[in-house]
Amino acid sequence: MANEDANVLPKSYPMVGADGPLSYTKNSQIQRGVVDGANELVSEAISEKLDMKILQFGTSNDFRIADFGCSVGPNTFIAMENIIDAVEKKLNNAEHQPSAVEFQVFFNDHSNNDFNTLFRTLPPSRKYFAAGVPGSFHGRLFPKSFLHISHSSSALHWLSKVPEEIVNRKSPAWNKGNIQCTGFVKEVVEAYFGQFKIDMESFLNARAEELVPGGLLIILRSTLPNGVHFSNTFKGKLYDLLGSCLNDMAKMGLISEEKVDSFNFPIYYPSPEEFEAVIQRNGKFTIEKTSLFIIPMKDIAVSIQFGVSQVRAVYEGVIQQHFGNELADQVFNYFNTKFEENIFTILEEKCDNRVELFMVLKRKCLA
Amino acid sequence: MANEDANVLPKSYPMVGADGPLSYTKNSQIQRGVVDGANELVSEAISEKLDMKILQFGTSNDFRIADFGCSVGPNTFIAMENIIDAVEKKLNNAEHQPSAVEFQVFFNDHSNNDFNTLFRTLPPSRKYFAAGVPGSFHGRLFPKSFLHISHSSSALHWLSKVPEEIVNRKSPAWNKGNIQCTGFVKEVVEAYFGQFKIDMESFLNARAEELVPGGLLIILRSTLPNGVHFSNTFKGKLYDLLGSCLNDMAKMGLISEEKVDSFNFPIYYPSPEEFEAVIQRNGKFTIEKTSLFIIPMKDIAVSIQFGVSQVRAVYEGVIQQHFGNELADQVFNYFNTKFEENIFTILEEKCDNRVELFMVLKRKCLA
Repeated sequence: MANEDANVLPKSYPMVGADGPLSYTKNSQIQRGVVDGANELVSEAISEKLDMKILQFGTSNDFRIADFGCSVGPNTFIAMENIIDAVEKKLNNAEHQPSAVEFQVFFNDHSNNDFNTLFRTLPPSRKYFAAGVPGSFHGRLFPKSFLHISHSSSALHWLSKVPEEIVNRKSPAWNKGNIQCTGFVKEVVEAYFGQFKIDMESFLNARAEELVPGGLLIILRSTLPNGVHFSNTFKGKLYDLLGSCLNDMAKMGLISEEKVDSFNFPIYYPSPEEFEAVIQRNGKFTIEKTSLFIIPMKDIAVSIQFGVSQVRAVYEGVIQQHFGNELADQVFNYFNTKFEENIFTILEEKCDNRVELFMVLKRKCLA
Repeated sequence: MANEDANVLPKSYPMVGADGPLSYTKNSQIQRGVVDGANELVSEAISEKLDMKILQFGTSNDFRIADFGCSVGPNTFIAMENIIDAVEKKLNNAEHQPSAVEFQVFFNDHSNNDFNTLFRTLPPSRKYFAAGVPGSFHGRLFPKSFLHISHSSSALHWLSKVPEEIVNRKSPAWNKGNIQCTGFVKEVVEAYFGQFKIDMESFLNARAEELVPGGLLIILRSTLPNGVHFSNTFKGKLYDLLGSCLNDMAKMGLISEEKVDSFNFPIYYPSPEEFEAVIQRNGKFTIEKTSLFIIPMKDIAVSIQFGVSQVRAVYEGVIQQHFGNELADQVFNYFNTKFEENIFTILEEKCDNRVELFMVLKRKCLA
């Protein structure tokens, strides 16, 4: 039942904790854009697709929501409040209003997530009972038929691990010189895609067990339009630049080449079609809604510092675990310099868009 | 609903976090003694007093347990496992065995408790789904009728605050020169006892709402036999010694006298009768079992270092919040010295016993 042992699988890489200048709390404006961009969609979906009869599956009148891969606030707080507002509106409009529904929100992330900061920054005037649930969302985290709405935003690109072939010198999928699934090498894409399918199957199976029949699974995740290679997106170019920093540092003798060769990001961005296909194959959910949208970035002042901080807040943990804590500073300082030197080249090249996928799934009723 | 705002009441004082040499994790052998001493009693009580019909109040076949004031491990893990073992035994012996009961354990403590360490040290092979619930146990933390068993060990002596009269120079209950309810001054005892009654009423009301009808509330807490003054117990003498350290340091000009005068421990040890009386007055529980026991200390090697560490692991937070972080080291170093000088005097004096009270309450069924 306990699916996480610090020494075994699955590996986990927390966002930068606390709320200092390098923290995820202070450097998650893009992820905030996803939440903001989807607020309307989430409200609409709950209004149209949530059947309040699912409350019969509660102890009494409690309504339970979980956020999978919540990291630290404030994005998760905003998303959860938005869901509660939508459910409340629905309750107020119901013909037979259940009396005094109480909300309970479960914040999930790996056990090395900074839950202390999450708990200390909970909105004081929240209208829900809060709980933290440590563990990998690739496995079970709740009892059967426990949750009414499950939610995951900007988290499902994380795989449970880097596929083994990727770092195996003898495999045709060896990703020498790269730190991610660029999209250009067929064998590499296949290996990442294989891991993606395994992980999504585990994720969907776990969520299906935990949701009450008729419960909703709301997903926000980045996807790549068919035919778009990740390394042709702005984010992909940024990560490739980070990869080239590591390669440079290996050449300068600051890191061993072998260490760099064995390093890859455990992330994969599927196409919307690929993601839909795993859901269909899994068979435990109906797809109720699908929308694509581009993150509204217009209110975000993009600077070199901003770009580096956003990447660091998310990937410092991965870098530290592989290369050691001391090296992280060096890597990101060098990344900062190289980013400055290359920013105009990157901006001049045409960038393809990643696309945010919003999806509402409904747990099928058991036969 | 959210009852805890860092800037407002109730104040909270976490045990020393992480798992270093000064941590609560490494310095809670006495509290462990309480858990071990009560294991048999808990198992027996569950066997005799738990009516498995309460499972009808679950979503499906999940059984929910909460530990109030859990601090960090390992004591809370041991206590929770013991409860689950007893419930499982009961299930196995049941005539109509419910299929595949799943356990969920909620670890509660203040939001400045070290939940990160708690989560990272969860037993990897646990047979329950784990969650952390931040907030004061003097208020509501769960939806109505949500829990099947609530548990609290070595935590209920904490009051939500120091009663105001205690630090008011103009009050007859002003506790000048002391840092705790010694038991010798009638007005001081009355003020502490008043706060105790208010806090226990809030605690019992909250737990009554959260438990399913028929659910059990298992309490382990230190009490003082009628007529025993806290300052005549070994622990009381230790705290008085700590208080005299603060007074000495004020005389030496290291701390302001006013700062010392305004400092008191927010703790109260009632007599078993006092505690029983608040439960009776509250009226929401029946008392199913009561036992008194003395902590088996024979396996614990008591040394100066041990004594100081045990006190520090629990009270460093209180000292830090009042006097500032820097002073805590100084206070406890001085305490160490003074303890060494006085240990034989303390041991030669007759010490009265505190007594551990074990109580099993059952949530009355609603009329």
